[in-house]
Amino acid sequence: MATNCLFCKIVKGAIPSFKLIETELSYSFLDIGPLSKGHALVIPKHHAQKMHELPDEYLADALPVAKKLAVALGCENYNILQNNGRLAHQEVDHVHFHVIPKPNEKEGLSMSWPAKSADMDELKAYHQQLLNKL
Amino acid sequence: MATNCLFCKIVKGAIPSFKLIETELSYSFLDIGPLSKGHALVIPKHHAQKMHELPDEYLADALPVAKKLAVALGCENYNILQNNGRLAHQEVDHVHFHVIPKPNEKEGLSMSWPAKSADMDELKAYHQQLLNKL
Repeated sequence: MATNCLFCKIVKGAIPSFKLIETELSYSFLDIGPLSKGHALVIPKHHAQKMHELPDEYLADALPVAKKLAVALGCENYNILQNNGRLAHQEVDHVHFHVIPKPNEKEGLSMSWPAKSADMDELKAYHQQLLNKL
Repeated sequence: MATNCLFCKIVKGAIPSFKLIETELSYSFLDIGPLSKGHALVIPKHHAQKMHELPDEYLADALPVAKKLAVALGCENYNILQNNGRLAHQEVDHVHFHVIPKPNEKEGLSMSWPAKSADMDELKAYHQQLLNKL
């Protein structure tokens, strides 16, 4: 737990929230600045800024909670999103998984997807580089 | 496994891929239509279109794999994204978690975030509704 972290305070109950599911390792609640009705957050009870800093057991617990929320929300279309770092749109420095219903074109998450076809030789070389790090 | 699913074919090796980490339950590889260098996918070996249709053990396995990829990619800023349904930008009907490095403003995932402050009374009522479904 971090003393000055908004989400740690929510987990401890020092700041109120519209709590949904709580497990031993995770806490979930409604976002009060939602992109769509039902926009919820799942947060690990362990304080870490970025996803790759979390112990595996907290990571393993998060998505089954998100799944239960998605079922309760009853949405056909939705996004699971977790942002790491300011450039990647992270606003609170405690890992959080967004569950964002996408009921129509206007509400929910909007993104642009400027995919490029990879240069296959470059990708092959980069793949080899990565394998050496795994 | 689904016979006509692109990702099931990749898991079986019937279609080649730049494989990264493989576990008993998950398979990961480089996206050949990347949003940024290192854009990778983690897919469960169980065929399901949407996240909430997956058994929990597959969900639990996916993020620890994504974490190892993020560490190997060495990116400071990145997004984890999983899309469900056409409206939410899902293009292949087999659950996949994107790991998308965000090296600068131009590359990687771009999104708009038209958050609204929730009406607290409405949110409170909706919260109660949801609790009844959980």
